[in-house]
Amino acid sequence: MYFFRNDYSEGALPQVMEALARTNACSTVGYGDDPYCHEAASKIRHRFGCPNADVHFLVGGTQTNLTFLSAALRPWEAVIAAGTAHIATHETGAIEACGHKVCTVPTADGKLRPEQIRQVYADHGAGRDEHMVLPKLVYLSNATELGTVYTRAELTAISQTCRELGLYLYLDGARLAQALTSPGCRLQPEDLADLCDAFYIGGTKNGLLFGEALVIARDCLKPNFRHAIKQRGGMLAKGRLLGLQFSTVFDDDLWLQAARHANQLAARLTEGLRAAGWPLLVDSPTNQVFPILPNDRVVLLEQEFSFERWGAVDDGHTAVRLVTSWATEPAAVDALLAALRP
Amino acid sequence: MYFFRNDYSEGALPQVMEALARTNACSTVGYGDDPYCHEAASKIRHRFGCPNADVHFLVGGTQTNLTFLSAALRPWEAVIAAGTAHIATHETGAIEACGHKVCTVPTADGKLRPEQIRQVYADHGAGRDEHMVLPKLVYLSNATELGTVYTRAELTAISQTCRELGLYLYLDGARLAQALTSPGCRLQPEDLADLCDAFYIGGTKNGLLFGEALVIARDCLKPNFRHAIKQRGGMLAKGRLLGLQFSTVFDDDLWLQAARHANQLAARLTEGLRAAGWPLLVDSPTNQVFPILPNDRVVLLEQEFSFERWGAVDDGHTAVRLVTSWATEPAAVDALLAALRP
Amino acid sequence: MYFFRNDYSEGALPQVMEALARTNACSTVGYGDDPYCHEAASKIRHRFGCPNADVHFLVGGTQTNLTFLSAALRPWEAVIAAGTAHIATHETGAIEACGHKVCTVPTADGKLRPEQIRQVYADHGAGRDEHMVLPKLVYLSNATELGTVYTRAELTAISQTCRELGLYLYLDGARLAQALTSPGCRLQPEDLADLCDAFYIGGTKNGLLFGEALVIARDCLKPNFRHAIKQRGGMLAKGRLLGLQFSTVFDDDLWLQAARHANQLAARLTEGLRAAGWPLLVDSPTNQVFPILPNDRVVLLEQEFSFERWGAVDDGHTAVRLVTSWATEPAAVDALLAALRP
Amino acid sequence: MYFFRNDYSEGALPQVMEALARTNACSTVGYGDDPYCHEAASKIRHRFGCPNADVHFLVGGTQTNLTFLSAALRPWEAVIAAGTAHIATHETGAIEACGHKVCTVPTADGKLRPEQIRQVYADHGAGRDEHMVLPKLVYLSNATELGTVYTRAELTAISQTCRELGLYLYLDGARLAQALTSPGCRLQPEDLADLCDAFYIGGTKNGLLFGEALVIARDCLKPNFRHAIKQRGGMLAKGRLLGLQFSTVFDDDLWLQAARHANQLAARLTEGLRAAGWPLLVDSPTNQVFPILPNDRVVLLEQEFSFERWGAVDDGHTAVRLVTSWATEPAAVDALLAALRP
Repeated sequence: MYFFRNDYSEGALPQVMEALARTNACSTVGYGDDPYCHEAASKIRHRFGCPNADVHFLVGGTQTNLTFLSAALRPWEAVIAAGTAHIATHETGAIEACGHKVCTVPTADGKLRPEQIRQVYADHGAGRDEHMVLPKLVYLSNATELGTVYTRAELTAISQTCRELGLYLYLDGARLAQALTSPGCRLQPEDLADLCDAFYIGGTKNGLLFGEALVIARDCLKPNFRHAIKQRGGMLAKGRLLGLQFSTVFDDDLWLQAARHANQLAARLTEGLRAAGWPLLVDSPTNQVFPILPNDRVVLLEQEFSFERWGAVDDGHTAVRLVTSWATEPAAVDALLAALRP
Repeated sequence: MYFFRNDYSEGALPQVMEALARTNACSTVGYGDDPYCHEAASKIRHRFGCPNADVHFLVGGTQTNLTFLSAALRPWEAVIAAGTAHIATHETGAIEACGHKVCTVPTADGKLRPEQIRQVYADHGAGRDEHMVLPKLVYLSNATELGTVYTRAELTAISQTCRELGLYLYLDGARLAQALTSPGCRLQPEDLADLCDAFYIGGTKNGLLFGEALVIARDCLKPNFRHAIKQRGGMLAKGRLLGLQFSTVFDDDLWLQAARHANQLAARLTEGLRAAGWPLLVDSPTNQVFPILPNDRVVLLEQEFSFERWGAVDDGHTAVRLVTSWATEPAAVDALLAALRP
Repeated sequence: MYFFRNDYSEGALPQVMEALARTNACSTVGYGDDPYCHEAASKIRHRFGCPNADVHFLVGGTQTNLTFLSAALRPWEAVIAAGTAHIATHETGAIEACGHKVCTVPTADGKLRPEQIRQVYADHGAGRDEHMVLPKLVYLSNATELGTVYTRAELTAISQTCRELGLYLYLDGARLAQALTSPGCRLQPEDLADLCDAFYIGGTKNGLLFGEALVIARDCLKPNFRHAIKQRGGMLAKGRLLGLQFSTVFDDDLWLQAARHANQLAARLTEGLRAAGWPLLVDSPTNQVFPILPNDRVVLLEQEFSFERWGAVDDGHTAVRLVTSWATEPAAVDALLAALRP
Repeated sequence: MYFFRNDYSEGALPQVMEALARTNACSTVGYGDDPYCHEAASKIRHRFGCPNADVHFLVGGTQTNLTFLSAALRPWEAVIAAGTAHIATHETGAIEACGHKVCTVPTADGKLRPEQIRQVYADHGAGRDEHMVLPKLVYLSNATELGTVYTRAELTAISQTCRELGLYLYLDGARLAQALTSPGCRLQPEDLADLCDAFYIGGTKNGLLFGEALVIARDCLKPNFRHAIKQRGGMLAKGRLLGLQFSTVFDDDLWLQAARHANQLAARLTEGLRAAGWPLLVDSPTNQVFPILPNDRVVLLEQEFSFERWGAVDDGHTAVRLVTSWATEPAAVDALLAALRP
């Protein structure tokens, strides 16, 4: 069985495993106040060009999203997000469970536009109608849940819109490395801290055992955030594990190398699918590919390959999601393409 | 620097590290639905004699407590706990953040008594005064935050009280293995599932990188609990890591061996402290020891040993907390005792 | 200035004011456990043919909705509602503030259809996908926010769908009396308790100073609801005021008489608008009328009449909302029609 | 049956009822943006010497407390209160239901002391221990739940402590008028806005049908508070009723006259009880009196008088609570004293 189900089907990059083994017996204080975490935070601040940012390490993405959003917002404040946003579709209402409405807008490609943000803001009385929630934070994913990416110009325009309207801009970077290494991407790490108020760098989907690094750039969002982490159950006792893993992958830009591998394998897959004539649901330059297949081919394919059905396109066709990762081998891609020969 | 600060200052047991390395490249589905988790759950059900229990794996203790309690309780229902209970003192109001009051009662040794439970229940109108919260769940820690343990008779009496009053009984087993292996303990694993409605088996403080295994014995508390885990941000993407670790330590009762080691080192420490004439705050048979020391000796000790100050006892004396673990070496204990020679 | 802004622009029906004055000096116990509340509950149970229902009196609609929904749902459970539902548009995210997502579906007329309910349920994995909220309660308004009403057949079909899928059915009856007295309505009070699990009878918008009567028909939703009311701040100290008002308007079906008056004035208005050639946004048989007017006529009209702009229809036209009530005088309607002569 | 059960057993002061009747047919906009509310707010700002304060009208005390506290606090922030505080004992965990812990301290007389506030703050790491909640707001009641009052010096000392520690000071004034009119009270209305960050003026327990006026003096607590009111279900549709009632009782200091009457009747009661030799649980200068009676006398008394048992004092004696109000007649007091002749 070849796995294209997700980018977290295996353990961790060999370098990460090696570091964990090497330091296993060292004694440190807990809760992320250890030398590994300090070192990792320092490397991240340097790599993202934000010497004054706060960096926190959390175990998973839903946890990071709910902890940050609930710490940033007052009870009546709400989030603006694309209809496909992870927080709106696959986090079991975690943001609502913290008390906040997520105002979604439909998109074809998973990407929010400035004019959509303006419209949601206006539709809620521009913050002056107390009978409605007050939109206060824009949530983006990059890469998006559909594998698409924001260009530097697009992210800049959204950032300007947010600042004009007094909205926070938060970027869910579960697959940030994959976005940054996508072909033709001109967005640089240092742009993130400049354009966003906060964002996180995904580790779970990019070769760590687990872990996300939250970067808070905006001063007013920094105080007491460790209280928030602890209260929401996200403070890892052996926080050292998070620091050590991030510290490891920020050496030699290993985090970008791992993502580039995933993207390259996805490109090989896309190319093969196109050559075989299969249509794609969306044009994705990162490590998620969404071919549209006849239903009977999907059933056949499932016998040898593990992947997710994304949704029915029409009565006879289904879009499926194929995900590559740092661990995907070319042979697996070739096997899949062979199985999909027309 | 010798570490007596906590039982999670190092990585994991060698067997755990070896298992992680060995299986690193295997592909599995995510979120705890993989073969390792199924195997670990099966071993736990067998070891605790509860073939019908649900077993869930979570990353940390605060997360486990808040997820279970908020899933079990209706909005107006409250928790009864000792004043020293972890949820009441060191979880940043996580239970209240989920909407529930924790009604605490003072204790000298961290252990709740049946009559205290009855009193809290009666003081809240026995559930019939709508101006007050309705106590619905009793929270115990075993071993307690003070290192003490419940006897089999004590836990049985509490369980009977809870059933009589219609209260759920939940046991926080962050240090359950340490309790079960404490000298003279007649409480058996199978008693837990019999006497409690739910409990968790701590891994973080007993040699795992991280992880707690929640066992839900009572049927009405089982439905949709995975929704609760995901919503609170506690569902690990690579859930396999949790299953694999627990599966490893349930072979040959490695979890009990690790705890027994910690207890034995603590006993050596206690014996040495007593021999040197230092009074102890509480009589603990497990891996936390609380000597009361003159303030100047505490300051001196901190130069070579890492530990936590527990609290001032009088103007000149402080109780400190010394914790041993699976990783503590006899030499460290001896060094500490040497430093505390009168 | 004539008021068509809302159905709560004045005080209360003369009979209500008289009852308040007459009983002002009587002493009663507080919190709704007084003889007036008992009498009102008894009249309501009788009029709605539900001798075993629980009846609770609350001050306002948002309070009633948030208290009932948060008491009925577990943390991961969600609500299905029309996109125009009051809870989704004009209650400042009150349901989300209690932790629950509201899954909305677009409608042209404010009315949910059984197939929409089925679709939302299916889209959330039919309750078996822990990465999504679990839809558990259907929220309807009758009359809807657009003045439309559910027929007996429509409500029956929705009720059957809910029972089949295991969903609670809750009806927001802020304008229930207006629905029941709308022309041709075959829905009877006794149908409500039969088809819904809970519903409320609106007083605020039908001639009371304030007050809504919540009727809980389903047994499993009854326990400890007074705890929920108190906890959410909805338990009126002088609960007597609520019981007395409802008791008064359930004599001689005064509640239906008041609503019938509002509907008749609205019908007179609708007829006049149609005769003058103004299009209507929606065909409403109750006390809210939505003519579409040229923007300059809207501005002119606002000089003499108080009403709400509902929304732009195109660049040159706006839909406005005109609301009649128990207090509306025919002369006001005639003045408005005169002002809108073509 | 004579009522000493509470100060909200009857309707409203005749002047209030007259105003409601007189204005019943006037049309106004809803939600507290009407001329009556504006006028009442203006009178309150003037009477309390705080021209820049925001004034909001809510229906009840629990609602006011939970709405203000949850709007003022971030998720990890907590409240410091006396163990007898209404929010800690008789509001069904409403503050916890909004996510916040209430840290209580025992008192003999219901009054917090500056040193207790300092102690709680220090015990929580002075706001720097992320494993604990962060105390951020001090809640006082004046008069307290035991009828006692804060002197001007005491309130000043608490205010200074709060400012030094960076804590908000909030005063629950359910019985504020009774405190201000208690014998020897030197605290003036204008002191309140000066010493507190926010407080409310109770109407429900002082002759209104219902209603509390929340005064927010501190600028940072003002923004978007109407959003908070609406979200928590506390925005009365016919807000006019609140404004009108407060406007009425702020003419000629009717609010203070009503409270003075209640206090005078309580003083007459206290004097009689003392003369008859009955001990009092606490020395209360306001309208709640707590005699300690033999259990058999309590049972006898209940046949003719409605009141509340406060709690057992010893096996043979019970403290009862006798409450007077604007509506209490001297004859009722005399009847009670007659029934308690030794």
